[in-house]
Amino acid sequence: MNRSSEQSPESGLRARLHTLIFEADTPAGKAFDVALLCAIVLSVLAVMLESVAEVRTRFGPVLHLAEWVFTLLFAVEYVLRLVAVRRPLDYARSFFGIVDLMALLPSFLSVLLPGAQTLLVVRVLRLLRVFRILKLGHLLGQAEVLLTALRASRPKIIVFLGTVLTIDVIMGAVMYMVEGEENGFDNIPRSMYWAIVTMTTVGFGDITPKTVYGQLIASVLMIMGYGIIAVPTGIVSVELAAATRQRPDTQACPGCGAQGHDLDARFCKRCGTALDWAHP
Amino acid sequence: MNRSSEQSPESGLRARLHTLIFEADTPAGKAFDVALLCAIVLSVLAVMLESVAEVRTRFGPVLHLAEWVFTLLFAVEYVLRLVAVRRPLDYARSFFGIVDLMALLPSFLSVLLPGAQTLLVVRVLRLLRVFRILKLGHLLGQAEVLLTALRASRPKIIVFLGTVLTIDVIMGAVMYMVEGEENGFDNIPRSMYWAIVTMTTVGFGDITPKTVYGQLIASVLMIMGYGIIAVPTGIVSVELAAATRQRPDTQACPGCGAQGHDLDARFCKRCGTALDWAHP
Amino acid sequence: MNRSSEQSPESGLRARLHTLIFEADTPAGKAFDVALLCAIVLSVLAVMLESVAEVRTRFGPVLHLAEWVFTLLFAVEYVLRLVAVRRPLDYARSFFGIVDLMALLPSFLSVLLPGAQTLLVVRVLRLLRVFRILKLGHLLGQAEVLLTALRASRPKIIVFLGTVLTIDVIMGAVMYMVEGEENGFDNIPRSMYWAIVTMTTVGFGDITPKTVYGQLIASVLMIMGYGIIAVPTGIVSVELAAATRQRPDTQACPGCGAQGHDLDARFCKRCGTALDWAHP
Amino acid sequence: MNRSSEQSPESGLRARLHTLIFEADTPAGKAFDVALLCAIVLSVLAVMLESVAEVRTRFGPVLHLAEWVFTLLFAVEYVLRLVAVRRPLDYARSFFGIVDLMALLPSFLSVLLPGAQTLLVVRVLRLLRVFRILKLGHLLGQAEVLLTALRASRPKIIVFLGTVLTIDVIMGAVMYMVEGEENGFDNIPRSMYWAIVTMTTVGFGDITPKTVYGQLIASVLMIMGYGIIAVPTGIVSVELAAATRQRPDTQACPGCGAQGHDLDARFCKRCGTALDWAHP
Repeated sequence: MNRSSEQSPESGLRARLHTLIFEADTPAGKAFDVALLCAIVLSVLAVMLESVAEVRTRFGPVLHLAEWVFTLLFAVEYVLRLVAVRRPLDYARSFFGIVDLMALLPSFLSVLLPGAQTLLVVRVLRLLRVFRILKLGHLLGQAEVLLTALRASRPKIIVFLGTVLTIDVIMGAVMYMVEGEENGFDNIPRSMYWAIVTMTTVGFGDITPKTVYGQLIASVLMIMGYGIIAVPTGIVSVELAAATRQRPDTQACPGCGAQGHDLDARFCKRCGTALDWAHP
Repeated sequence: MNRSSEQSPESGLRARLHTLIFEADTPAGKAFDVALLCAIVLSVLAVMLESVAEVRTRFGPVLHLAEWVFTLLFAVEYVLRLVAVRRPLDYARSFFGIVDLMALLPSFLSVLLPGAQTLLVVRVLRLLRVFRILKLGHLLGQAEVLLTALRASRPKIIVFLGTVLTIDVIMGAVMYMVEGEENGFDNIPRSMYWAIVTMTTVGFGDITPKTVYGQLIASVLMIMGYGIIAVPTGIVSVELAAATRQRPDTQACPGCGAQGHDLDARFCKRCGTALDWAHP
Repeated sequence: MNRSSEQSPESGLRARLHTLIFEADTPAGKAFDVALLCAIVLSVLAVMLESVAEVRTRFGPVLHLAEWVFTLLFAVEYVLRLVAVRRPLDYARSFFGIVDLMALLPSFLSVLLPGAQTLLVVRVLRLLRVFRILKLGHLLGQAEVLLTALRASRPKIIVFLGTVLTIDVIMGAVMYMVEGEENGFDNIPRSMYWAIVTMTTVGFGDITPKTVYGQLIASVLMIMGYGIIAVPTGIVSVELAAATRQRPDTQACPGCGAQGHDLDARFCKRCGTALDWAHP
Repeated sequence: MNRSSEQSPESGLRARLHTLIFEADTPAGKAFDVALLCAIVLSVLAVMLESVAEVRTRFGPVLHLAEWVFTLLFAVEYVLRLVAVRRPLDYARSFFGIVDLMALLPSFLSVLLPGAQTLLVVRVLRLLRVFRILKLGHLLGQAEVLLTALRASRPKIIVFLGTVLTIDVIMGAVMYMVEGEENGFDNIPRSMYWAIVTMTTVGFGDITPKTVYGQLIASVLMIMGYGIIAVPTGIVSVELAAATRQRPDTQACPGCGAQGHDLDARFCKRCGTALDWAHP
């Protein structure tokens, strides 16, 4: 609401374009977002289907046409977005601006550079548009809570990842020595791949220890990995609990403006002012 | 208790049928439920055993007979249920009414359409009757707490699933390009299947990365999946803790109206008034 | 302590035997327990080593002798235990009494019935003696907290297991129909084994879906299993937090004797008496 | 800060060396740590690359030179560290002192004993230097919280590991008898390896049950392992929540001495005294 009142003194057309394309509050804006969402999903499905050999043989030209139709639609949308905002460069340099542009480039690139393999590499980025689903509805608030919890967990998770990688390097080297090249542990990087496969409890089974000592070390690594799963789970649980407990940021103390009070707080923990919304 | 007093002015037979079939409070009702439960489990076991080639060869006719006996029993039960309730259509359209009907249809369908394969597809639904076990005893309250926690977690879990699927699509496409068809990553849908197998730490090993870059990307995906396990666990833990901690909202302090008291609290934690419902 | 004061008016020898064998508080009792522990571990190791073909060929007679030495030692210990308690039948019928007896029987049985295979089946039970390690030291208190939490989680875990088994049966039947016998899903029980392997994220890869629809259903099952891991973890976390938060049972309210107060409680939640031990 | 003021009356050179090498607070000290970190990572990468057959063939001599350059650099660093501290023996006997020395030995050992295999075994220990990354920046505090939580969980985790190992031994023996040597369960230790692979949900698939009873027992073991994951996660969550919630015990309220305030509390939650250390 604050944003729309800021932008009200703009030129009428741009304001309406902005409301239509960037906001999901009005019926027209919502319809645009849903239509865009469908177009993105369909274009992603087209890319997926084109990778299936049987489908490519039968529907290749149709899928190729669909790809160009979606590319043109998204190009028009990209230009409209640039027009709709007051500072087009700011949008172009934002995360979604870059993603929007990158979702267009591979199709045009494929004309200049007909290397199919290269084209496919970049086309994948178009899939990132799916993230825009999050713009719809009330899910944003929940995504916010998740992100707050993950951001608060970051330092602990860095320490945790460092420990995991260290164990991985050491275990990879140990298994390379114990099992050796004759059992599939060809070199330390490959052993490290095995150690990650094992420690994360994925366990593909493409490389497995054959010797008694190798199986013993693998057993220790597995139980360690099993226990280590507990750590990030504990971290995220604790931070999520903290993020959930706090009120939304819009509910600030009337006395000092402090936010983030507990849900059952009756007095501001900063200045002691009674919180008038508190009637649990 | 409220429900039985509502239904007391009904006709005597229907009321007794209702008590027998729909309620598990009286000895007769309990016996009926246990007998029904056994019949359902036995009928499911018969379907299972019939799928085993050796058993089918030896006991085929017996199992076929058992199937029809169970079908007739359940048909009689279905009719009695329709008779026992005041508004039969309401029951027929309820979740368990539909399941009860669907548990009967495949057997009758198999007469008209002798395609064994088609029959089996629908027969599976009979297994849903196992859910009725939950009707027995004090477990319903616990199921309620679990459901409350899961319902409260739903928006967060939708955001989480969206993120997982997005990562899955991107990783599937990246691995399709990096590994290619010669290493089993035949097309993007198949690569996405692999990405889910890997990210969920299942790791069948039917498709595995062979190239160095593929193994590197797989390692990143595995550690991500490992960390991502933490998120739904954290979500459910927090919501379960909230659902467990609180009494239903209908039980407010008679003095100050405060809710959310501990399950064994005898005095209001806000104002000290004795909580009259407390008899731990 | 209460128990030893109860047993003080016993005959001197039996009391000393009881202290030596059943209690770990005196130095002699502790030494006995440690020695017994070593003997159990060694006897289990002997059983393990005898199963290894190379070891059996070389050290077979030595291991056979060791087995009989341990059997005689444990037999003497069993008789002493019967002598040391006032009501031998109560001990013989208790859990550890039965385990102690079963740890002896297989060796004697192997004389009468020289079927090696049968013998091995029962010998395994001797390993249960390892549980007695828990008797040592301060770990019992922690085991108590874990057991309290698990016992409190039981109803929720039964509901959870019921749901998992239902999903397993339905998914097993669906995959049996979708994939069929040509892809390794020979019958419903085998498909259910696959569904459990998949849902628990173990993923052996001995049976894997080959068709597109099978892989799609498997993907859904994997993501479900992934999310379902969250539920028991949440349950145990919440109950463990509750079990940890409560004071040991020895600290009762001086006013009404109520136990299980929160760690930071200053007044009894039952009767309001000030808790004199509260000085956090 | 306290430590640097203690060490201020030292000789100037040693003090400056100490600040440079052991502390990361000054720009020079930080630069030294970052340079050391890069050197360690590069030397570890060199060891890794040398294990890859193709790289060894082409860049063998270069990597060999690099190994010696790093060894000499680390040797100089080790001597400087001994000089920089007041009690060199204390440093030499500390954990990082021993790791620093062990990171040097393998290179020198390889001259005396040209057995490449032996050399590699010890070289791995050099990787432990990666742990020193934790010395940098504000991550130490988070590592502290993690360690506090893990230390508090230790007795519960020992009980838990004991239970897991007992189940493992029994399940290994049972599967050895049920499946037998013809299905890959060659002996009890190998069956125990399989039981750990299964219970930790790793599931390599190198050994899998083939008989119906084996698959039934494996299913039970998998669901048990699935549920057992919940226990360490719950333990760590609860302890992490406790470790995160509380300030270090040294920070008590100046008014009433109460400890364990929230990290952003400005007033004592017991007596309302302003907490003078609070500057969030």
